[in-house]
Amino acid sequence: MTHPRFQLTAVGNAIVDVIAHATDEFLASENIIKGAMNLIDQPRAKHLYSKMGPAREVSGGSAANTMAGFTSFGGNGAFFGKVAKDQLGEIFIHDMTALGLHLECNPLENGPETARSFIFVTPDAQRSMNTFLGASVEFSEDDIKDSIIAASAMVYLEGYLFDKPQAKAAYRKASKVAHAAGRKVSLTLSDVFCVKRHHAEFLELVKNDTDILFANDDEIKELFNTTDLDAAIAAVRGQCEIVAVTCGHKGSIIVTADKTIQIAPAPVDKVVDTTGAGDQYAAGFLYGLSQSMTLEKCGALGSLAASEVIGHIGPRPEANLSDLAKLAIAA
Amino acid sequence: MTHPRFQLTAVGNAIVDVIAHATDEFLASENIIKGAMNLIDQPRAKHLYSKMGPAREVSGGSAANTMAGFTSFGGNGAFFGKVAKDQLGEIFIHDMTALGLHLECNPLENGPETARSFIFVTPDAQRSMNTFLGASVEFSEDDIKDSIIAASAMVYLEGYLFDKPQAKAAYRKASKVAHAAGRKVSLTLSDVFCVKRHHAEFLELVKNDTDILFANDDEIKELFNTTDLDAAIAAVRGQCEIVAVTCGHKGSIIVTADKTIQIAPAPVDKVVDTTGAGDQYAAGFLYGLSQSMTLEKCGALGSLAASEVIGHIGPRPEANLSDLAKLAIAA
Repeated sequence: MTHPRFQLTAVGNAIVDVIAHATDEFLASENIIKGAMNLIDQPRAKHLYSKMGPAREVSGGSAANTMAGFTSFGGNGAFFGKVAKDQLGEIFIHDMTALGLHLECNPLENGPETARSFIFVTPDAQRSMNTFLGASVEFSEDDIKDSIIAASAMVYLEGYLFDKPQAKAAYRKASKVAHAAGRKVSLTLSDVFCVKRHHAEFLELVKNDTDILFANDDEIKELFNTTDLDAAIAAVRGQCEIVAVTCGHKGSIIVTADKTIQIAPAPVDKVVDTTGAGDQYAAGFLYGLSQSMTLEKCGALGSLAASEVIGHIGPRPEANLSDLAKLAIAA
Repeated sequence: MTHPRFQLTAVGNAIVDVIAHATDEFLASENIIKGAMNLIDQPRAKHLYSKMGPAREVSGGSAANTMAGFTSFGGNGAFFGKVAKDQLGEIFIHDMTALGLHLECNPLENGPETARSFIFVTPDAQRSMNTFLGASVEFSEDDIKDSIIAASAMVYLEGYLFDKPQAKAAYRKASKVAHAAGRKVSLTLSDVFCVKRHHAEFLELVKNDTDILFANDDEIKELFNTTDLDAAIAAVRGQCEIVAVTCGHKGSIIVTADKTIQIAPAPVDKVVDTTGAGDQYAAGFLYGLSQSMTLEKCGALGSLAASEVIGHIGPRPEANLSDLAKLAIAA
């Protein structure tokens, strides 16, 4: 096994977030499932945008957000995704490249526009996403470069990729290449409805194909058909080398074959927008792993990154997470 | 004079801001004049973007930002500007329409892209703008609809329009139509270098064509060729019905023929990004005027709006300014 060129390579949907405030009444009137990632088509995207208040645009996408956090801690890596050859695609490519990432993103011509997620943030800081996948639906195995995957110590794959057959094939290929090269494969379950949509396949992925699993409490319960978190944790134990379960403001739980570690949440002045909390938790955790830190420290970095991102609007860190981590250690 | 349909109509460059943090060393190495609006061409825009860190996009443009603040206070109005038929143009149009504004903005086809301002925010929260005018250079008299101008109690025009001959003609037309209809004309001097570029014309505008003038201390000193603020204030007194001079963290000064009113700044926890401070001051001030408030109250609303916008990244209010104003009165 050669020394890896990259610490982490992620594969995911390349999305630009369009973020605005909204009321709970608005979500209800538009039949938006609160807190979820709602998949939408183009007419629905047009409709929701016409109903949305003044917004701001920030590059997003779950795995891409994780890479933004990972590089903010000082990590290096690569990203695979698909944008269209348009202004939003340019913005996404710019933002990923500006992070210092190696980007493999061949813009789509003469197809759908770059993916957009219309995110409504309610007064309780919860985010409800409405994602038009656009050019991301053309993301396929052909977009995965084996040599990059094989040259990464870890790959990070989002469950969302299972929502389109071609993207699922890309997932399978990345995972296969990584394992063949002796690398670690990490999966995030993404969203509770995504777990519902791909239940049998996700169960199989977790059991046979995942070294490091990220999920929130609802997702892991959904996966094991239980309303009891302890039962879900008992069920998942030993299936993956490491399982990290985030539990919102209660912190997170790290589960290995023989250990269960409770991780406290990091303090936050005011929760403004929970978008990207899970993505940033994974960023901190994976950065810790890349530095061979203890699981306790990995979890603490995850909490730290999550607490930073929920303190402002948008799914990616505004502060330098490496500096924040130094401050936290000094405190 | 018929009862006006709109309280305020603004005319200005339609710009999408691209905002990122940068160091003072970066500004120096790129020859960016700190705190100023630097006009750039397309190759320079491409170069600066390639050097810029991860960014976020928000609709901007000085007069357009003022309209965002004005509607946030509860005002109504219209806006004239020019975007291209592209994704950034769509974003600009969306954001203005979502404010409830009547928008007259015929997107340009087969020309330059929608204007972008690359804004670098340094650690001292100062913003340095680098504006590629793009489609805005095609903004002309033909884009001004007389009936809307004539139906507005006040028009608000940005000095930046003088940077392009066609836009200057649009300014002149809007001002002429407004005065012919017995409406008030308001001008912002925009930027100290803009004052330098159009010195003689701005002097003439202020003297003969402006009812309500907005300027910061540097701009008004530049206009009257003095380093002494009191001398500049003495020189401008009586030239316009109302002059409002903003002085950064020192607050503002309102000058009429026979009065000079000092306005205190509103408190702010932490100054994050000064982009839009002047624009929002004008928004609060003009909203006060639209409600026939005293000049003291107009100034206080200006301070309030400015303090909100410098507390976060981006040139437009994130909070509801009407609610903030109610809280401020209750306090």
